[in-house]
Amino acid sequence: MDKTIYLGALDIGGTKLAATVADASGPLARVVAPTARSGGERAVGEQATSLLAQACATAGIAPGMIRRVGVSSCGPFVTVDGAIALVTPNLCGGLSGASDLPNDWTRIPLESVLRESFADVVIRNDCVAALTGERSFGALQDQANCVYVTWSTGIGFGLCVDGHILLGKHGNAGHAGHMLLDAASDALCGCGNRGDVEALVSGRNLGRRGGQNAAAIFAAARQGESAERTLVEQAAQWFGRALYNLAVTLDTRVFVIGGSVWLHHGDWLEALVQHEIVTRLPALTAEVTLKPAALGSLVADIGALCLVLPAEWRETWRQRQPWQALTS
Amino acid sequence: MDKTIYLGALDIGGTKLAATVADASGPLARVVAPTARSGGERAVGEQATSLLAQACATAGIAPGMIRRVGVSSCGPFVTVDGAIALVTPNLCGGLSGASDLPNDWTRIPLESVLRESFADVVIRNDCVAALTGERSFGALQDQANCVYVTWSTGIGFGLCVDGHILLGKHGNAGHAGHMLLDAASDALCGCGNRGDVEALVSGRNLGRRGGQNAAAIFAAARQGESAERTLVEQAAQWFGRALYNLAVTLDTRVFVIGGSVWLHHGDWLEALVQHEIVTRLPALTAEVTLKPAALGSLVADIGALCLVLPAEWRETWRQRQPWQALTS
Repeated sequence: MDKTIYLGALDIGGTKLAATVADASGPLARVVAPTARSGGERAVGEQATSLLAQACATAGIAPGMIRRVGVSSCGPFVTVDGAIALVTPNLCGGLSGASDLPNDWTRIPLESVLRESFADVVIRNDCVAALTGERSFGALQDQANCVYVTWSTGIGFGLCVDGHILLGKHGNAGHAGHMLLDAASDALCGCGNRGDVEALVSGRNLGRRGGQNAAAIFAAARQGESAERTLVEQAAQWFGRALYNLAVTLDTRVFVIGGSVWLHHGDWLEALVQHEIVTRLPALTAEVTLKPAALGSLVADIGALCLVLPAEWRETWRQRQPWQALTS
Repeated sequence: MDKTIYLGALDIGGTKLAATVADASGPLARVVAPTARSGGERAVGEQATSLLAQACATAGIAPGMIRRVGVSSCGPFVTVDGAIALVTPNLCGGLSGASDLPNDWTRIPLESVLRESFADVVIRNDCVAALTGERSFGALQDQANCVYVTWSTGIGFGLCVDGHILLGKHGNAGHAGHMLLDAASDALCGCGNRGDVEALVSGRNLGRRGGQNAAAIFAAARQGESAERTLVEQAAQWFGRALYNLAVTLDTRVFVIGGSVWLHHGDWLEALVQHEIVTRLPALTAEVTLKPAALGSLVADIGALCLVLPAEWRETWRQRQPWQALTS
């Protein structure tokens, strides 16, 4: 009988779903598919189970040999009979304002469906999983008071205070992208808020306000086009104020920033962001530092694995970085 | 030899300092004095030690018999050589913008001075201590995801997520009164921010903006004076948005609200505050509830005691509520 411990990892996003199988040596196989959008509300959970079985087949093991499954998922979550379900606006067509989706789901019963095949499942919001990954193997090792933030199509946070990763009553802690920042703004967020962080700075909403996609806006801003430069610089200021608000709320020491916007433009945005933090309330902000995320595009897969990784594997993985073999 | 366990509790505020001594039966003595504002920077710590000795004398015990000391203190804190010092603008005359104080202190070495007399000292921000008190004996018993907030002269928060009370890198978590809410506002906070929560809603700043003291403004608003009514209703909306911001950041279930403003006017402000929370992002806010604080004016003393209270005393204290004998 094979006594090797096998782990499963799922990265469930609004556009793609990735399943990875690993053992102590590192990831063995990874399978990716577009996230299910039609069928019954069990479709996403069943697709995740099926992709994990495919990853097992590629790795040459039976799905029943998976000991634990870590899941990085888009949110928000609700708890139904003690199990996590997703109420994600860009997957659930039955939620208000999402009528262009080919389904009428109001919630996706993720945990209950996964538990039909796997006994030990740990589901976390994608930024919480990313935070776990960066604390295990990335830019936040040995940091007790730290925040992971992604600045990308949307804005999300994973929060750690006193070495404790914050979950909240339904695992939704870190939805500070929906924190209100500018009461006078008419910038609209997908959640219906006006003037929240995501409305003011996310790639999706910058693109909407600038009349072209976010990449083009940032490129024009880089070349000194004044309208785009103003839009981007204001976004950096709002983003900095959001981090300031978190720093005074949580007495944070380090912010690690990931996501495509920061990856490509963090070099020139960092000074603007830092300025908004350290010019206020020095007792709380003087020691705050910003760092780029270290795990790149694999952060969700690594983060999901870290949710269930045996402690005794950690040091070897730190040294060998076996996830480098994964292709994203 | 007396084997009774004695505890000390200190409530260090900007205007008064209270020292309490207790044993398993409850508080034995309490001594209060105006907080020291002159002398060297050790003055506050030495005054606290001295008041605790006076409380011991009243209780008929020697100060050396105090086993542990819990301290509820105004902040913010900095850590100097591993010990907490206060950098409180309304006590330290050497900090910018506080030149009307009769001292040039830039920090108050509280923990190091207390440790010269007491080996076991636990110092927490006043709202963190209040949160601890409300979770032990007040309105937050058995709540894992909860926030204590005081709406008074200033605005302060104590935060609890997943049953863990948040401290942060220097014990300053909960300074969300300095969260920026209204970028367009010229309302000025004592910290120098414009448009933060405290600038927009604190009793001190409402009074400054309304040209009379906060109590008079609230009284006029109650009687339907339109200018005052607008000022107060806007303040309630800003306060509600601050709670909303915390609810989406921390996935909070219950807010307990203390402080003189809420004590006297929570009855008619509550609906305005609740509206700002539950009309946004229902997955996170639908279950959020507001409750009045239960421990009243003794919350700081009880909170300070709760920081060091032996677990085996708790059930008896819950039933007997021995702090009722204290006069504030």
